[in-house]
Amino acid sequence: MQTLLRKTVFPVLGNEDLFDMEDAAKVEVPEGSVALTTDSFTVKPLFFPGGDIGKLSICGTVNDLAMRGAKPLFMTLALVLEEGLSFNKLEKALESVGKWAREAGVKIVSGDTKVVERGFADGMYINTTGVGVIFEGKEVSIRGAKEGDVLIINGFVGDHGMAVMNARESIFSDANLSSDCAPLWGLVDTMQDAACLHALRDPTRGGLGAALKEMAQASGCHLEIWEEDIPVRAPVEAACEMLGLDPLFVANEGKLLCAVAPLDADTVLCAMRSHPYGKEARIIGEVVSGKPGEVTVRTSMGTRRPLRMPSGEQLPRIC
Amino acid sequence: MQTLLRKTVFPVLGNEDLFDMEDAAKVEVPEGSVALTTDSFTVKPLFFPGGDIGKLSICGTVNDLAMRGAKPLFMTLALVLEEGLSFNKLEKALESVGKWAREAGVKIVSGDTKVVERGFADGMYINTTGVGVIFEGKEVSIRGAKEGDVLIINGFVGDHGMAVMNARESIFSDANLSSDCAPLWGLVDTMQDAACLHALRDPTRGGLGAALKEMAQASGCHLEIWEEDIPVRAPVEAACEMLGLDPLFVANEGKLLCAVAPLDADTVLCAMRSHPYGKEARIIGEVVSGKPGEVTVRTSMGTRRPLRMPSGEQLPRIC
Repeated sequence: MQTLLRKTVFPVLGNEDLFDMEDAAKVEVPEGSVALTTDSFTVKPLFFPGGDIGKLSICGTVNDLAMRGAKPLFMTLALVLEEGLSFNKLEKALESVGKWAREAGVKIVSGDTKVVERGFADGMYINTTGVGVIFEGKEVSIRGAKEGDVLIINGFVGDHGMAVMNARESIFSDANLSSDCAPLWGLVDTMQDAACLHALRDPTRGGLGAALKEMAQASGCHLEIWEEDIPVRAPVEAACEMLGLDPLFVANEGKLLCAVAPLDADTVLCAMRSHPYGKEARIIGEVVSGKPGEVTVRTSMGTRRPLRMPSGEQLPRIC
Repeated sequence: MQTLLRKTVFPVLGNEDLFDMEDAAKVEVPEGSVALTTDSFTVKPLFFPGGDIGKLSICGTVNDLAMRGAKPLFMTLALVLEEGLSFNKLEKALESVGKWAREAGVKIVSGDTKVVERGFADGMYINTTGVGVIFEGKEVSIRGAKEGDVLIINGFVGDHGMAVMNARESIFSDANLSSDCAPLWGLVDTMQDAACLHALRDPTRGGLGAALKEMAQASGCHLEIWEEDIPVRAPVEAACEMLGLDPLFVANEGKLLCAVAPLDADTVLCAMRSHPYGKEARIIGEVVSGKPGEVTVRTSMGTRRPLRMPSGEQLPRIC
């Protein structure tokens, strides 16, 4: 274990603090509130177009912090490895962890590695826990949406779920399906510089549909989305259609749903489009008066129907 | 998933913050440095005499914080559940999580649940990440042992490893083997009130032997332990003898190894014995002059031999 850690795990992560082998890391957090979030990643397969379990484990946790307006600072990394997992796969996954941690500006300060018998853990599981700082006045919450607010998304939905599913099942061999997995703190920071954000949510498991419903419930308001304005890439649309899936409920890993005051919408949109992860940002609906906790879909025909949550997960093990 | 969380996970944990379903929790950390540690628990079986995966997941992380002199404040809890795991087992494990979190004075503020297919994750894995505060002047490290220091342990070694092994393999059906799993922050706090602690380590995986070696290496000094003073319970001694194991290398989950200045040793011992988890505290050796990074065992015959680390783990999956 000591050899595995020193030879394979630590160098790839490039953080000398890990070498001192203390039981816990000591870190300094700047003044402000502390945001804390945890996520386990059990994605299958470990590598897929647009990402891998390592990238996912950084982005997923960075994004959960970003959705609270928290600047990600530190992360812990816990590996559960299946006996017999190739060093090559482990190294590739860890290189990706290191690369995306640097990209996202987080420091990995503490780790843990457990090895379980062959047949368990399906190659590897990763848990990351993130610590961020919420500077004075910068807190965002899923509870802050208000009637009249405009709903914005930063790009196409359903990319991650369909990319992972296709990588797992090889259904569409020539389809151009790639995960949108990306760390979103930089984008949130840019948006916060432009205006006050009322509410944020990253539409991961459960897709945009679940995120809308959760925001409606948490904020106690009624959301309306405009079906024809929901951006879906053609290959995702096609793949979903063939499999009977609704892209609204397919997972994303580089998307955020934002509620802002109508007067700020243009400023926020402009700011988002100036950022690499917000180029295709657009308005997809608004907060209307109506039954709190519910979401209405305005169809392309101009009719309205309630958004119904599918029972169960459409695609398990996508993160 | 929402139903599982609301009906089974949250109520048992008894922390209303979890109900707001934010992406990340916001917490306030008192002034001081922040200590951060993560641990995954894959113990087999999930329940064993003296503990279970839930208790272990709290104590393991609390103890890693305590070894830095950090008061445990917050914890995240990530579950990886095997499809088909009985609700009864899940509830029992979570009740234990809740009970021991309260006992240890930590608040569980953020969680995550993933379900993997039948055959994976062996029932359940738990990851906990702990956040603690290190008050000014209270930092402890594994690197602080100094020549002349006295080495103290808070009780019998090898209990946890042998209890789990026996629960797994049912070798000794009538043996009185029970895990020592316990949260040690209270004990450390009591010890710090009594005197300045030079170095701390919890002898978990790898047992007391590995902890001694790690302290010798990290502190750059030479440790000598007195074989006849290492406290081992009779049933643990007997079970180890029959299986050809050395209790020095069998895991503990409620023990700490401490180095203190010789003048403080009595005060610290007294303080420890006043605490429920330190009643059997005793001196087991000292820091001597000699080759740094090495550990010498003084045998009951008065001879001396170097402590050799066993290659590989004696008992996998004990935490």
